[in-house]
Amino acid sequence: MEYPSKLIEEAVNEVSKLPGIGKKTALRLVLHLVKENENQTFALTEALNKLRKNIKYCQTCFNISDSDQCSICTSHRRDKSLVCVVEESKDVMAIENTSQFIGVYHVLGGAISPMHGVGPGDLQIESLVQRISKNPEIKEVILALNPTMEGDTTSFYLNRKLQAFPVKVTSIARGVPMGGDLEYADEITLGRSITARTLFN
Amino acid sequence: MEYPSKLIEEAVNEVSKLPGIGKKTALRLVLHLVKENENQTFALTEALNKLRKNIKYCQTCFNISDSDQCSICTSHRRDKSLVCVVEESKDVMAIENTSQFIGVYHVLGGAISPMHGVGPGDLQIESLVQRISKNPEIKEVILALNPTMEGDTTSFYLNRKLQAFPVKVTSIARGVPMGGDLEYADEITLGRSITARTLFN
Repeated sequence: MEYPSKLIEEAVNEVSKLPGIGKKTALRLVLHLVKENENQTFALTEALNKLRKNIKYCQTCFNISDSDQCSICTSHRRDKSLVCVVEESKDVMAIENTSQFIGVYHVLGGAISPMHGVGPGDLQIESLVQRISKNPEIKEVILALNPTMEGDTTSFYLNRKLQAFPVKVTSIARGVPMGGDLEYADEITLGRSITARTLFN
Repeated sequence: MEYPSKLIEEAVNEVSKLPGIGKKTALRLVLHLVKENENQTFALTEALNKLRKNIKYCQTCFNISDSDQCSICTSHRRDKSLVCVVEESKDVMAIENTSQFIGVYHVLGGAISPMHGVGPGDLQIESLVQRISKNPEIKEVILALNPTMEGDTTSFYLNRKLQAFPVKVTSIARGVPMGGDLEYADEITLGRSITARTLFN
C-alpha cells in the first residue's frame, strides 16, 4: 500500500503493532483521527501517555491500581482468608463482573510457558508464597488460571509449592459452559465433564 | 464494567471513541500497552501527535500530503489533463493501488449529504471549478464517487456545475464486480448492468 504521506505511514505502522489490528484497520483509524477535530487525537494520546507513566501495581496482589494498594485489597468488605490466583488483571475484571467472589486476588502476570521463555521466576509466584507464609489468616487459595496447557502447568506448579502451607488449594470448576448445546461442546470438555461429574443435589 | 484503575478507564474511554472499537476491544488494546514496554506507547502517541500537528493537504488536489503540493500533483509522469474526483483520501489510495490511472486527483472531502448537514459549500467543489477554469489543459473529469445516494447526488451536482466548461465529464463504470457470482449480485446492480450493457468487443 502506497501512503500519501510519510506521517500517515508512520502512524499506521505504530497503530498496526496493536494486537488484532492490521494495516487496513490501522489506516482506517488514522484517517478517522485526521478527519476529526485534533483535540480527539490529543485527548487519546494524553490518556495513553498518562496511563503508561502513572500506572501502578498493587503491592499485595499485583493487580493494576492507581495506588500502592488496590481498592480490593484495602476494602473491609472482602474476605482476606480467600485468595484467588489469576494470570492477568483482565481475569480479575472478569471474575469481579460475576459478583460471585468476595475474597481477594493474586495476579501472577502470566503463566509458565517454556515455549515463550516464561519461567516461574518471571511471575509473581515467590510473592504469593511470601504472602501466604506471612498471613496465617489465608485459609484457601483458588487457582483460576486459564484452561490451557500453560495455565494447567502453572496450576500444578503452584499446587506443589503450596503443599508446604496449611491452606486448602482449590481450582475453579471445569465442564460444559452454561447455555451451550452438548453437541457443540468439544470432546475434551465433554469427556472431562463426564469423568468429573458432580452429585445432582 | 468495573475497571481496576481510573487511568485504565480514561484510556479505554478515549480508545473506544475510534470507529469500530468497542469497550471490550479498547480494554484489550489498553491492557496490551500496559503489559508491553512503555516505549511502544510513547512511539504510538508520538506518531499520532506528530501526524495530527503536521498533516497538510495538497493545495491543488486536497489530498493528504506532507507538503503544500502532493507527490502526485508535482509528478511529471502524471497526465494533468485527466482529473479524477473522489470523496476521500482513501479513495485515492484505492485507485492508486490499481495502477490503472495515470491522471491527477481532486479530493472533495466527502459527499453532499443533507441528512448529515453536508452541503456543497462544505466540500472542495468551488476549488474544483476554479481549478478547471484556470487550467485549460484539463480535458476530462472522471467522477469516481461512491455508488451511494450521497455519491450520486454529488455526481449530479458536479456534472451540472461542469457543463459550463469545455471538459468531458465521465463516471467510473458500474456493473457486476469481477469474480462474483451473478446470483449473488443485488437486483439493482444486476438490473443496471443489463440496462447499461456495453458492446462485447
